[in-house]
Amino acid sequence: MTRISRAREHQGVLTKPPGSLGRLEELAVLLCGQQDTDTPKVDQVQISIFAADHGVCTEGISAFPQQVTGQMVANFAHGGAAISVLARHLGASLEVINLGTVEPLPDLPGVLTNRIGPGTANLALQSAMTEAEVRQALEAGHQVSQRAADTGAQLFIGGDMGIGNTTSAAAVACVLLGEAPSVIVGPGTGLDVTGVRHKTAVVAQALRRHGDDVTPLSVLTSLGGFEIAALTGAMLGCAHRRIPILVDGFIVSVAALVGVLQQPGLADWLHFSHRSGEPGHSRILAALMARPLLDLNMRLGEASGAAIALPLLRQACALHNEMASFDDAGVDSGSSDEP
Amino acid sequence: MTRISRAREHQGVLTKPPGSLGRLEELAVLLCGQQDTDTPKVDQVQISIFAADHGVCTEGISAFPQQVTGQMVANFAHGGAAISVLARHLGASLEVINLGTVEPLPDLPGVLTNRIGPGTANLALQSAMTEAEVRQALEAGHQVSQRAADTGAQLFIGGDMGIGNTTSAAAVACVLLGEAPSVIVGPGTGLDVTGVRHKTAVVAQALRRHGDDVTPLSVLTSLGGFEIAALTGAMLGCAHRRIPILVDGFIVSVAALVGVLQQPGLADWLHFSHRSGEPGHSRILAALMARPLLDLNMRLGEASGAAIALPLLRQACALHNEMASFDDAGVDSGSSDEP
Repeated sequence: MTRISRAREHQGVLTKPPGSLGRLEELAVLLCGQQDTDTPKVDQVQISIFAADHGVCTEGISAFPQQVTGQMVANFAHGGAAISVLARHLGASLEVINLGTVEPLPDLPGVLTNRIGPGTANLALQSAMTEAEVRQALEAGHQVSQRAADTGAQLFIGGDMGIGNTTSAAAVACVLLGEAPSVIVGPGTGLDVTGVRHKTAVVAQALRRHGDDVTPLSVLTSLGGFEIAALTGAMLGCAHRRIPILVDGFIVSVAALVGVLQQPGLADWLHFSHRSGEPGHSRILAALMARPLLDLNMRLGEASGAAIALPLLRQACALHNEMASFDDAGVDSGSSDEP
Repeated sequence: MTRISRAREHQGVLTKPPGSLGRLEELAVLLCGQQDTDTPKVDQVQISIFAADHGVCTEGISAFPQQVTGQMVANFAHGGAAISVLARHLGASLEVINLGTVEPLPDLPGVLTNRIGPGTANLALQSAMTEAEVRQALEAGHQVSQRAADTGAQLFIGGDMGIGNTTSAAAVACVLLGEAPSVIVGPGTGLDVTGVRHKTAVVAQALRRHGDDVTPLSVLTSLGGFEIAALTGAMLGCAHRRIPILVDGFIVSVAALVGVLQQPGLADWLHFSHRSGEPGHSRILAALMARPLLDLNMRLGEASGAAIALPLLRQACALHNEMASFDDAGVDSGSSDEP
């Protein structure tokens, strides 16, 4: 009997009507399979935030100035960002990997520097990355997954920080899904209607420049960002190392889409935490056949949606591992003889 | 400036795009108003499960035999039920109030006995409760709310245990919402199609017996149950004592509906945790203009849905209280001048 079928059978003998814990039962069963155990746990969680800048910011596609990427890296380090607060309360390990802010940053606690360059090139006019750069970014992600394995992480959460990255991610998604920019492009950190229209035009220009190549790695190189590529690498690396992944919102889902198109087996390791308020996210989730756990209109990135959903996985594990069975508790189970 | 508007302003200066934490921001702001504080907290949580039996079980309306109510009370006491596991992990105080299992139970740890009778009468044939009984059940709920206040609870969660209680709650909801039984009655703990059809007929019979009286207290007396009435009393008592309430699923929502119809101000104290898999719940939530936080196809009762949602409230509070402001963190806020 496989872990999965044994886990399903176990759920059926716990003191509750069969199926009455809904998706929490499915979560526990999937984690049993992924972790190859009868007692799944997601106590040890590695949260890694990849930060990088985007040359496309010169097109004026964000509600926030570009220097905010570096400022937020410092905010992560000093414990003031949303993910800092959440990681602290969750007892999760939080690290930030700076892959290329425009200006190099001084040493900061909890921030690793793996500088690929001063941000990507302007994807509206030229390829965002060179092939060497995208390889370096993917490798940075792989290294993170190796560290997660080395430290015994039972679950991996990746996050993003990069002013301009919803423009880059939207462009990647448009090519990979064959969608028009108007279907995928949204307000990001808070553009108004005029701003979204301009951002849509910039993505359309980038798609014309990019052309017809739909090879995932080529699309990632041409339209992606350092942090998006690193997230793809980290997720592929975690799947390779059999570490389940809790996927954050829009940016991480696009990175997951690239990864699944490259290696379809990645999909078996992904749990989707939430449906972002960024409108294009729903189209990406549909392409991944993903049913996110939460729909709270969050759209912050930096792994915050995944962090918010983590207690659901922990509670699913606790229920699976600690509830009494009908036999042990002396509770009559439902009978098809009784009406 | 009121607590609410000050809380909204505070959310606007935290290091995130305005509104990007979605419903977590709304939760924190509402809790500031309810708790009359700038730093809301839901660390101290009282979970009270009201248990009772239902005479309507003789009509064969449940997938589980009636003795399971008492057996599950023992399971709560011994830590093996879903809510036992969840309360332990949440560090929440859990108490069970036995209002009337068919057979009295021996003393059990964490179980208070407030015996109204050996379950309700069969609501298909006669009034489920006498006026004295419903008053006693409401008073039992009030006492629980007083205890929650005395022990400094920052949030109250009520739960139910009672084989047969989805039949009773469905009947109450049908009268109060003017709906046909077929709209509200569902499988409960797991009836098949034939079982649901029979249960619907039993509710229809009860509605004919009950007649036209739509006074909430009369409907509760005629069609409710000890635990449903106690939940109404507990929620009205908590609102009176200014303790916010996290509402569980189908049964507790019906108790809340009775309470809101009696005292509309109760609505200001209610947070709705989840949309139950029990199909009639959506109609009841709509009547209460409630947007539940979770939709995980859970349908267990015993406060499990509210317990699963509690971390969302705790995380909302932590973010509100602990995130850095743009000024403090030296992060540029978005500017309407920048495109």
